[in-house]
Amino acid sequence: MAPLTPRLVVPIDVKKQPWEQELPLHNRWHPDIPPVADVTEGELFRVEMVDWSGGKVKDDNSADDIKFMAGGIAHYLSGPLRIIDSEGVPASPGDLLAVEICNLGPLPGDEWGYTAIFERENGGGFLTEHFPRARKAIWYFEGIYAYSPQIPGVRFPGLTHPGLVGTAPSVELLNIWNEREKRLSETSEETIKLCEIQEGSAEWHRIANEAARTIPGRENGGNCDIKNLGRGSKVYLPVFVEGANLSMGDMHFSQGDGEISLCGAIEMSGFLELKCEIIRGGMKEYLTPVGPTPLHVSPIFEIGPVEPRFSEWLVFEGISVDEHGRQHFLDASVAYKRAVLNAIEYLSRFGYSKEQVYVLLSCCPCEGRISGIVDSPNAMTTIAIPTAIFDQDIKPKRLNGRPLSGPRLRRLPDLLSCSCDGRLPTTPN
Amino acid sequence: MAPLTPRLVVPIDVKKQPWEQELPLHNRWHPDIPPVADVTEGELFRVEMVDWSGGKVKDDNSADDIKFMAGGIAHYLSGPLRIIDSEGVPASPGDLLAVEICNLGPLPGDEWGYTAIFERENGGGFLTEHFPRARKAIWYFEGIYAYSPQIPGVRFPGLTHPGLVGTAPSVELLNIWNEREKRLSETSEETIKLCEIQEGSAEWHRIANEAARTIPGRENGGNCDIKNLGRGSKVYLPVFVEGANLSMGDMHFSQGDGEISLCGAIEMSGFLELKCEIIRGGMKEYLTPVGPTPLHVSPIFEIGPVEPRFSEWLVFEGISVDEHGRQHFLDASVAYKRAVLNAIEYLSRFGYSKEQVYVLLSCCPCEGRISGIVDSPNAMTTIAIPTAIFDQDIKPKRLNGRPLSGPRLRRLPDLLSCSCDGRLPTTPN
Amino acid sequence: MAPLTPRLVVPIDVKKQPWEQELPLHNRWHPDIPPVADVTEGELFRVEMVDWSGGKVKDDNSADDIKFMAGGIAHYLSGPLRIIDSEGVPASPGDLLAVEICNLGPLPGDEWGYTAIFERENGGGFLTEHFPRARKAIWYFEGIYAYSPQIPGVRFPGLTHPGLVGTAPSVELLNIWNEREKRLSETSEETIKLCEIQEGSAEWHRIANEAARTIPGRENGGNCDIKNLGRGSKVYLPVFVEGANLSMGDMHFSQGDGEISLCGAIEMSGFLELKCEIIRGGMKEYLTPVGPTPLHVSPIFEIGPVEPRFSEWLVFEGISVDEHGRQHFLDASVAYKRAVLNAIEYLSRFGYSKEQVYVLLSCCPCEGRISGIVDSPNAMTTIAIPTAIFDQDIKPKRLNGRPLSGPRLRRLPDLLSCSCDGRLPTTPN
Amino acid sequence: MAPLTPRLVVPIDVKKQPWEQELPLHNRWHPDIPPVADVTEGELFRVEMVDWSGGKVKDDNSADDIKFMAGGIAHYLSGPLRIIDSEGVPASPGDLLAVEICNLGPLPGDEWGYTAIFERENGGGFLTEHFPRARKAIWYFEGIYAYSPQIPGVRFPGLTHPGLVGTAPSVELLNIWNEREKRLSETSEETIKLCEIQEGSAEWHRIANEAARTIPGRENGGNCDIKNLGRGSKVYLPVFVEGANLSMGDMHFSQGDGEISLCGAIEMSGFLELKCEIIRGGMKEYLTPVGPTPLHVSPIFEIGPVEPRFSEWLVFEGISVDEHGRQHFLDASVAYKRAVLNAIEYLSRFGYSKEQVYVLLSCCPCEGRISGIVDSPNAMTTIAIPTAIFDQDIKPKRLNGRPLSGPRLRRLPDLLSCSCDGRLPTTPN
Repeated sequence: MAPLTPRLVVPIDVKKQPWEQELPLHNRWHPDIPPVADVTEGELFRVEMVDWSGGKVKDDNSADDIKFMAGGIAHYLSGPLRIIDSEGVPASPGDLLAVEICNLGPLPGDEWGYTAIFERENGGGFLTEHFPRARKAIWYFEGIYAYSPQIPGVRFPGLTHPGLVGTAPSVELLNIWNEREKRLSETSEETIKLCEIQEGSAEWHRIANEAARTIPGRENGGNCDIKNLGRGSKVYLPVFVEGANLSMGDMHFSQGDGEISLCGAIEMSGFLELKCEIIRGGMKEYLTPVGPTPLHVSPIFEIGPVEPRFSEWLVFEGISVDEHGRQHFLDASVAYKRAVLNAIEYLSRFGYSKEQVYVLLSCCPCEGRISGIVDSPNAMTTIAIPTAIFDQDIKPKRLNGRPLSGPRLRRLPDLLSCSCDGRLPTTPN
Repeated sequence: MAPLTPRLVVPIDVKKQPWEQELPLHNRWHPDIPPVADVTEGELFRVEMVDWSGGKVKDDNSADDIKFMAGGIAHYLSGPLRIIDSEGVPASPGDLLAVEICNLGPLPGDEWGYTAIFERENGGGFLTEHFPRARKAIWYFEGIYAYSPQIPGVRFPGLTHPGLVGTAPSVELLNIWNEREKRLSETSEETIKLCEIQEGSAEWHRIANEAARTIPGRENGGNCDIKNLGRGSKVYLPVFVEGANLSMGDMHFSQGDGEISLCGAIEMSGFLELKCEIIRGGMKEYLTPVGPTPLHVSPIFEIGPVEPRFSEWLVFEGISVDEHGRQHFLDASVAYKRAVLNAIEYLSRFGYSKEQVYVLLSCCPCEGRISGIVDSPNAMTTIAIPTAIFDQDIKPKRLNGRPLSGPRLRRLPDLLSCSCDGRLPTTPN
Repeated sequence: MAPLTPRLVVPIDVKKQPWEQELPLHNRWHPDIPPVADVTEGELFRVEMVDWSGGKVKDDNSADDIKFMAGGIAHYLSGPLRIIDSEGVPASPGDLLAVEICNLGPLPGDEWGYTAIFERENGGGFLTEHFPRARKAIWYFEGIYAYSPQIPGVRFPGLTHPGLVGTAPSVELLNIWNEREKRLSETSEETIKLCEIQEGSAEWHRIANEAARTIPGRENGGNCDIKNLGRGSKVYLPVFVEGANLSMGDMHFSQGDGEISLCGAIEMSGFLELKCEIIRGGMKEYLTPVGPTPLHVSPIFEIGPVEPRFSEWLVFEGISVDEHGRQHFLDASVAYKRAVLNAIEYLSRFGYSKEQVYVLLSCCPCEGRISGIVDSPNAMTTIAIPTAIFDQDIKPKRLNGRPLSGPRLRRLPDLLSCSCDGRLPTTPN
Repeated sequence: MAPLTPRLVVPIDVKKQPWEQELPLHNRWHPDIPPVADVTEGELFRVEMVDWSGGKVKDDNSADDIKFMAGGIAHYLSGPLRIIDSEGVPASPGDLLAVEICNLGPLPGDEWGYTAIFERENGGGFLTEHFPRARKAIWYFEGIYAYSPQIPGVRFPGLTHPGLVGTAPSVELLNIWNEREKRLSETSEETIKLCEIQEGSAEWHRIANEAARTIPGRENGGNCDIKNLGRGSKVYLPVFVEGANLSMGDMHFSQGDGEISLCGAIEMSGFLELKCEIIRGGMKEYLTPVGPTPLHVSPIFEIGPVEPRFSEWLVFEGISVDEHGRQHFLDASVAYKRAVLNAIEYLSRFGYSKEQVYVLLSCCPCEGRISGIVDSPNAMTTIAIPTAIFDQDIKPKRLNGRPLSGPRLRRLPDLLSCSCDGRLPTTPN
C-alpha cells in the first residue's frame, strides 16, 4: 500500500503574487539560496510553479504587458529542493542526480498560456530585425490540445515540458559564469527575490550581487528550453552543492526548437511530478568535463515515450547566407535564421501574417536540425513542421493557372498588439 | 500494363573510372554543362552514381587513400537530366520541380561504404583540432543494416539518402555564388571533368573557370547532406535553367545530423529511383526569396514514411561556451561542437576510442537539434543518439562503488590509420 | 477570453458509495434513464467516474474482494448526458455524435488501480480453465508510469482510456439486444441502480426488467474495451434517442488487446475531459447498417497522437489448434488463446509465475492482431509485447550450454491470493 | 574485407515455369524433400522466389486466370535450405533457428503484383458470401509505393514481407497435421512438384501422398501471412529435422491484417536477403509446447525498425453479431467480419465499389485487432485504416445539409472481372 498521490512539496496559488506564495520563490542562481524543502530519492513528489513572469502577462486583449515587461524578473523558480537518500544523506558534489519527469501539466483552473514577441528595445528575439514590435497570442488548452484565437486554423497537441530544471552552482562555478558573461553583466539586485532572507539585509545584498541570471542554459541545466524534456523523460544533472538544490520553472505547454520569439513557448504556470535518484560519484564517472575546469560539464537526458506523434512533415532548408546575401562561414545560427525566414515566407502564403507564423514556429512542435555543419562555407539547417497542425493542406501542389494566394486564404484575426500602436499594420515587413 | 521496372537513364560500372563511364559525370555546377538524358515528368527512372570520390577510397586496411585524397575532385555527379512534361516542353525558370525519391540503395554487388576523418592539413572536419589525423572505417551492409569491423558492438539500420540533389544554377545565380564565396576561391580547373566537352578546349576552360564547387548546399539544393531526404521523401527544387538540369550524387547509406567528420556519412556508390513533377510557376508562388535578389530561395521537402524508428534516445546538451571556456554569443555552431564533444567523452567510457565515437556520430542516425537560440548568451543544442544501435546498455546507472570504465569494456579494434603513422596511438587526444 | 478550465458536469467523491454520489450513477442501458446534465456541443467538460465496481475492490493484501465480487453490479457509469447544440436543440436519432477525448486520467488523490483474475465459478476469463482461482495485483501510478509490487521488474507507460463510452439505445434497439442475448438473460433487478427514480417504484421495476447489461460492447459503443480509445482520440457514436444520452465509465490506466483476464485492465476511478460535436444526419450518412435493421451499426473512431511509443516488440504466434491439439476452422478466438498461452509459457521462463504473466498480458500495452483469417484451416493471430516494459532482456539468445531458467531469474513476489486459499500454490497449472 | 554482396543460393528466372527453374521448387511440406543448398550461419544469402502461383496470374485485363486457378498448386516455395554452423554441423531437432530478414523486395524487372478475389466455387475468401465472383487488381510499384489502375485515388508504401517462411516438419509432426486436418484431406498428388525426385517414381508418390499442403500457418511457421514479418525483422523457428530445411515463398509487397480476400496481399515474385543463427537447444528452452506433444510449439519474432509510419488512423469496430443479426459467443472471427463489412460500407461512400474496398482492405497496411475477447457475449475487434493512403479526406465531417455520396465521388475504374461475366455489374451486393 504505497502513497496514492504525489507529495506536494511546493504549492502555488496563482491568484497571489510571486512573493506572496507559501514557500519563497527565487529568480537567480546562487549556492546560498536556502532550500525550501527536502525530498527523498525514490519518492514521487509534486512541485507547482508560476509562469516565468510570475503572472505579469494576462489573458486580455492587448500586448501592453509584453511591451513593458521588465525582463530582469526572469524566471520565477520553485525550489531549491534538497535531495537526500533513504538514510538522510544529501546528494554531494560529484554525484549525478537523475530526475524523472513522471508527469506534468498546467495548473488545474489555470489552463491557458501565451506566446509573445518582445519589443526590439526590450529584449527582442531571434528575428527582432524583422519583427520589432511587441505582440501576443493567447492559447487555450483542451486537454492535450492547444488553440489560439489569434492564430486561426491551427490546433495541436503539446509536447509539454519545463523550460528550466537545474541544480545550484557551486561558488566556483558561479564565478566562472560571472567571469565569462561579463559583457552582459548588470546590477541584478533590483529584481532578485529571495524571500527567506530578509530583503535588503546584508546577506540579501551579497547574494543578489553575486547571483547569476537564469536566462541561459548552463552547466547545471537551467533554462535549456529543450522541448523534448517532456513527460516520461529523465534528466541527469550534475551536483555542485550539498543537497543538489534542485530548482525548476518556466513551464511550457509547447515549444518549437529554438523558441525563436524568445517569449516563444506557450508559457504557462504548471506542475511537475518528479522522482529523483542519486547516482553516487556519477558526475565524475559519466560527465567528463569539456573545458578548462572539472566543472565544465553538461547534463544529459533520455527522451520520454509519449511525445506527440506526427508522420508528415514539411521541411524548410536554410544555409549560412544571411538575408542580405552575405556569406557566413559554417554558421549554424545564421543558417537557422534563413530556414525560419523561409518557412515564414512560405506559410504566410496560406493566409497568415508573417508575425503569426513567427509566433507559431516559436511554439508549435517543429524540429530545428543542424543537418550539415562541415560543407564549407555553408552550414545547412532545417526546420521541420508537422503538417497535421493546420486545418488546410499546406503542401505545394499544382496551381493549374491560379495563383495560390487569394482572399479565400486570408485569415482575419491577427496577433494582439499594443494600445499605443494605434492602427499599426500588424505585418509591417 | 505499365512498364514494370524503372527506366535506367544513367548506368554506372563501378569497375570503371569516373571518366570512363558510359555517360559523362561532372563535378561542378554550371548552366552550360550539357544534359546527358531527358526525363518525362511522371515516369519512374533510375540513376546510378559512383561514390563522391569516384572510387578513390578502397575497402582495404589503411587510411592512406584518405590521407592523400585530392579534395578538389568532390563530388562526381550523375546528370544533368533535362526534365520535360508529357508534351515535351521542358521545365522553365520559375517552375518548381518536385522530385520524389521512390527508392534508393547501394549498387548491387557493391554493398559497402566508408566513413573517414580527413587529415587536418587536407580538409579537416568539425573537430579537426581534436582529431587531426586521417582515419577510416569500412562498413558492410546486411540489407538495411550496417556494421564496421573498426567500430565493434554497433549495428544499425541506415536512413539512406543522397547527400546531393540539385538543379543547375543560372548564370546570374552562379555569379552570386562566386562573388560571395570569393575568399574560398581557387582554381578549380585542374579537377573539373566535363566529358562531353573536349577537355582542354576553350569551352572547357571557360566553364571550368566559371563553375562552382559542389561542396556546399545552396539555393539549388546541392550538397545538403540532409539525412532525412530518404526513401519516400519528396524534394521541391527551384528551376533556374530550361530543363532544370537535375544532378545527383554523394550517396549515403547513413549519416548523422551534421556529418561532422566531413567524410562523415557512410559513403557509397548507389542508385536512385525517382519521379518528377513540374509545378509550373511554382518557384515564384511557393519559394519567396529571402535575400537581395529573386534567386535567394531555398528548397523544401517532405519526409518519407519509412525512416528507421527508434524509441529510446540518449541526448547530450551543448551550450555556446567553447572547450576553452570562452563565451560565444548565441552561436549554434559552437554549441553543437560542445554537444558532440560531450557525447564523445561519454561514449568513450564504454570501450571506444574517441576517434571511433567521432566517426560513429558522423554516420549513425543521430539527431542534432537547435533547441534554444534566444537565451542569451547561450545557444543550446542537443545531439540525440538512439541507444538501440549499441550491443550494450549505454544509459547512466548506479555504479555500486565500482568505476564504470574497465578492461571489460575495452573494444580492441580501432579505426584504420595510415601506413606512415607507424605505431601512432589511435586516440592521441 | 475563454473559460480556462473544463466545466465539471459529473463530480465523484471516491470516499462515498456509488449510490451516495451527488449525481446518480447507473449500471444498465435503457432509453428512460434520465439525463443528469446537459452539455453543449463545442464546450469542454469534465466527467468523473468511479471504477467499474464502484469502489468494491480495495488496495489491500488479499484477493477476497475479487473472489466474492457480485459481477452483476458492472459497470457503474456516469451520465447520461443530454447533448444539445448551440441553439439548445438536442442531438436526434440519426445524428452522429463525435466525442473527442481531450484528456483523461486517474482522479487526483486516487492514483492506483488493480488487475484481477475472477474465480472460475464467478465469471472466469479468457483462460479460466488454466487459471481458475481469484487473484489480484495492485498497481501504483507514477505519472504516466505504472508498477505493481505483485509483478516485479515491470514498469510501463499507460495507454489510458475509458473502457466504456456509449449512447443510450432506443426501445427498438434494446429489444434487439434482449432478444439476441436471451440465453444470457437473468433477472437484473437486484443490482440496477437508477437513483433518480425511486428504487422499488413501479417505474424502477419496469426499467430494471427491461434494461440491458453493460458488459458487452454493442451498436451504441458501450463496453468496447478498446485500448486505443485514448488521449486525443475521437469516437463517432450513433444517436438513438433524443439528446444522445451519453454515458461513460470503466476507466483503464492501461489494457492489453483482449483484456484477457476479464477484470484485466488496470482498473481505476478517473476523469474524462470531453468535447462533443453533433453531425446532423451523420449516422445515416456514415454508418451503413450491417444487419437486418437500420440499427445494426457500429461506432468508428480516430486514434489520438500521444499513444506510448515502443520500437521493439517480441511477437508470439497462435493458430486455431487448441491446447488439446484439436483443429478449429479459422477460429480467431482459439488462435488468440494459443498465442496468449505461448506468450505466458515463454515469459514464465524469465522468473514469473504463469498467473503473473496472464495478468500482465491483460493490462500491459500489448497488441493482439488477426494476422491471417483465410488460410484454411488455421486462423493466425499474434500478440506483440513491447520489450521495454521489462527490466531484463527477454529476447531469445544463445544459451552457451546453460539453461535459461534458474533461481537467479525467480522473482519472489506473486499475485495476491485469497485468505481461504491457505497455502495454495499460486501457479497450479 | 567481407564479401560485398549476399550469396545467391536460389536464383529464379521469372520467364520460366516453376518446374524449369535452375533449382527445383516445391509446394508441399515433407521431411524428405531434399535440400537444394547449404547455408552457413552468419553468412548473408539471397533467395529468389516466384510468386505463390508460379507465374499463372498475368498483368492483363481480365480476371480469367483467377477464376480458373487451380488452388492446389499453392504455394511454390524456394528451398529447402540446409543450415549448418561454422564447423559444418547442421541445425538439429530441438534447436531454434533465428532468421533475420535483412532485406527483401520484388525481383528487379518484375516490379508489379496483383490482388484478387477467388470465385466462391474455387476457394472463396473471408467474405465470399458477399463477393462471390472472381476479380483482380494489378498493382505497379514505384519504389516503396504501390498503386493500382483498378483502385484509383490510393497509393501507399508497402510493408513488404514473405507470406511464408518455415522449417520442414518431422515425420511425427507431419502425422499430427494430417490427422487433425483430415476433414480437409484430398489427394494432393496431382499437383506436387519435387523436381529432384523423379516425378512419378515410387518415392515421389510416397512423398506426394504424405506431404502436407502449404496453405495454413502451423507449428513450423509456414504460411503465416503476418504482415509485420518485414524488412529488418527476425523470426525464431523451431527445428524439427536435421539441417532445419528452411523454405520460403509467397512474397507480398503489402498485406492488411487478415489478408481477407485470400489472394489478398499484393502478390509478387521477389527476393529475400537473410542471415541465420542456430540457437542450440533453443527450441526446448524457449518454445514451451502448448498441446499434447512436445511438437505443439509456435514461432516467435521481433518486428523490424522500418515499417511504414502512419499517424492518423480511422478505426471500425465489429462485434460478434453477424450480418443476419445472430449472436455468436465471443467469436473473434465473426466480430472481425463485422468490422470489415462496416469498413467496406463506409469507404464505399467515397466513390469506391464494395469489391474495390474488399480488395483494398486485403492488401493495404491496415491493422486488425482483437480489442476485447472477454466481454460476454460480444468479442470486439477493430480494423484500423491509415487515412494517408487516400487522396481524399475520408474522416467523417459535418454535412451542412448535403448528402456525402454523389457523382463527384464516383471513381469510375473498377476491378478487373472475367470475360465470361458479360456486362455483370461489378458490385452486385
